[in-house]
Amino acid sequence: MAGWARAVRALVLDVSGVLYDSGGGGGTPIAGSAEAVRRIKASGLKLRFCTNETQATRENFVKKLQGLGFDISVDEVTAPAPAACRILKERGLRPHLLVHNDLVPEFAEIDKANPNCVVIGDAAENFTYANLNEAFRVLIGMEKPVLISLGRGRYYKETDGLKLDVGAYMKALEYACDVQAEVVGKPAKKFFESALAEMGVRPQEAIMIGDDIVNDVGGAQQCGMRAVQVQTGKYRPCDENHPYVKPNAYVDNLAEAVDIILQQL
Amino acid sequence: MAGWARAVRALVLDVSGVLYDSGGGGGTPIAGSAEAVRRIKASGLKLRFCTNETQATRENFVKKLQGLGFDISVDEVTAPAPAACRILKERGLRPHLLVHNDLVPEFAEIDKANPNCVVIGDAAENFTYANLNEAFRVLIGMEKPVLISLGRGRYYKETDGLKLDVGAYMKALEYACDVQAEVVGKPAKKFFESALAEMGVRPQEAIMIGDDIVNDVGGAQQCGMRAVQVQTGKYRPCDENHPYVKPNAYVDNLAEAVDIILQQL
Repeated sequence: MAGWARAVRALVLDVSGVLYDSGGGGGTPIAGSAEAVRRIKASGLKLRFCTNETQATRENFVKKLQGLGFDISVDEVTAPAPAACRILKERGLRPHLLVHNDLVPEFAEIDKANPNCVVIGDAAENFTYANLNEAFRVLIGMEKPVLISLGRGRYYKETDGLKLDVGAYMKALEYACDVQAEVVGKPAKKFFESALAEMGVRPQEAIMIGDDIVNDVGGAQQCGMRAVQVQTGKYRPCDENHPYVKPNAYVDNLAEAVDIILQQL
Repeated sequence: MAGWARAVRALVLDVSGVLYDSGGGGGTPIAGSAEAVRRIKASGLKLRFCTNETQATRENFVKKLQGLGFDISVDEVTAPAPAACRILKERGLRPHLLVHNDLVPEFAEIDKANPNCVVIGDAAENFTYANLNEAFRVLIGMEKPVLISLGRGRYYKETDGLKLDVGAYMKALEYACDVQAEVVGKPAKKFFESALAEMGVRPQEAIMIGDDIVNDVGGAQQCGMRAVQVQTGKYRPCDENHPYVKPNAYVDNLAEAVDIILQQL
C-alpha cells in the first residue's frame, strides 16, 4: 500500500500542469496545489521545483507563481538556462543565442563575443526564417559544431492553439549540420542530478511529481528516483499505455500525492 | 576506357550546378554547358532535365534557363511539384501547402479545401513561425498525418549566404508529429523512374550527370542508372571520400561528359 511513498527525504515538483495550468493571461492555479506546497514545506521534506520553462527568467517565472498564491522563491527552482550557463562557463563556450527575448537576461554574465556554440530555447516569435538561418550559419561555420538545446519538447498548447516546441527546431538544426544536440533540462539525467545535488539527497531518497510521462516520469526514473504522474496538466489516459515508461504510481493531483507521502513520514 | 559511357540511349541532367550556378540576380551559365545541351539534342540521345527546384514553377524556371542561352522546354523538365501533384490526384489527397509563393501555381488544379495532408517545399521567406505552427496543427490534427516533402536537402548557398533547405523543416515537422515524410524529388527512386518512363528507356540505358553526390549520383545509382559527378556547382573534393556513394566517373564539367559520351556512340 503506497510503498512508493516510503523513506522519502525530498520532493521534486514539475511546475506547469502540476502547480498551475498555463495560458489565459498568466495561468490558473490547480486546486489544492498551493496548499500542498505549504504542507510540504511545513513537513520538513526538502523541495525543488524542476521546470523546462525557457520563455522567462526564473525571477519573472517565480513572480508569476507567487501571484497565483504559491510559496516559491528563485533559489528553489531548477531551470534549463542556469544549467546551460554552468556548462558554458565550465567549457569556455561563448553562445550564439536563439532564445525567447525574456530569457536573455539569464545569460547576462556569459561572454557572447565570437561565438563557438549555439544555444537554442523555446524562442517562440524569435523562430524567424532569418534567425534560424543565422543560427545555422554560426553552427555550420564551426570545425565541430556544438548545439545546446534547452529541452527537447515536441509541442505545447497555448490559448490560441498548439505551438511547435524547441525540440522541433533543434531537430532542424541537427539535420542541417549533421550534429547531435546536447539537451539541457528534463529528461536529461544531469538535470535531475543537479536538482538532487542542490538538496543534498540521493536519487533513491527523492520522488518526482510531474504530469509529463517522458520528461518528468521517465527522466527521473532514469536517474534512479521514484516518480508519480498526476492526472492534471498534459496527462492523458493513453499515457498509461506508454511503451517503456511506467510511473511508480498515479495520483489525481499534487494534493493527493502530498496526502499519501505525508502519511508515510 | 570510359566504359561507363557505353550503350547509352538517354541522359538525365541535373540543372543547378551543371547547366548554371544560381545566385547573383538569376545565375551564370557554366562554360560549355549550353553548347553541350545542343550537342546532346543533335546526337539523337534522349534527354531529361531532372531538378529539385521548388522556388519557381517550371514555366518560370525554364524561362530563366532560356534567358541564359539554354535550349530547354517545360515538357523536358522533371520537377518535384508536378510529381507531387500526380501523387495527390492518385490518392485523393488535398494539401495544405507550405511552399514558396512562386510555386503555388503548380498546384492550381488541385483541390485544397479541408486538407488531409501537408506538402512542404523550400518555402524560403514563407518559413515563418506562424506558417510552421499552422502546418504543424493541420498535420497533428489528422488521424494519420501525411507529410509530403519536395526534396530533403539540408541547405544551399545563395549570394547572401547559406540557407536552411526544405529537409531541415521537414525534420522539424517529422519530429513534432512523430511521422515520416514521403520525399518527392531526388534522391527518391520513384522520381528517377518517372524521368526514365517519360523517355521510355530502362535504367541501364541512361546516365545521370549531376553535381550532388547523394541526391544526383546516389539516387540515380539506386535506381539502376549509371551516374557521373561533374566538378562544378556544389562538388567538393571531399565528395570523393563519400562513405557509401561512388560515381561511375568524375568529369570536369558537362561539356567533358558529353565529349566522352558522344565518342562512344
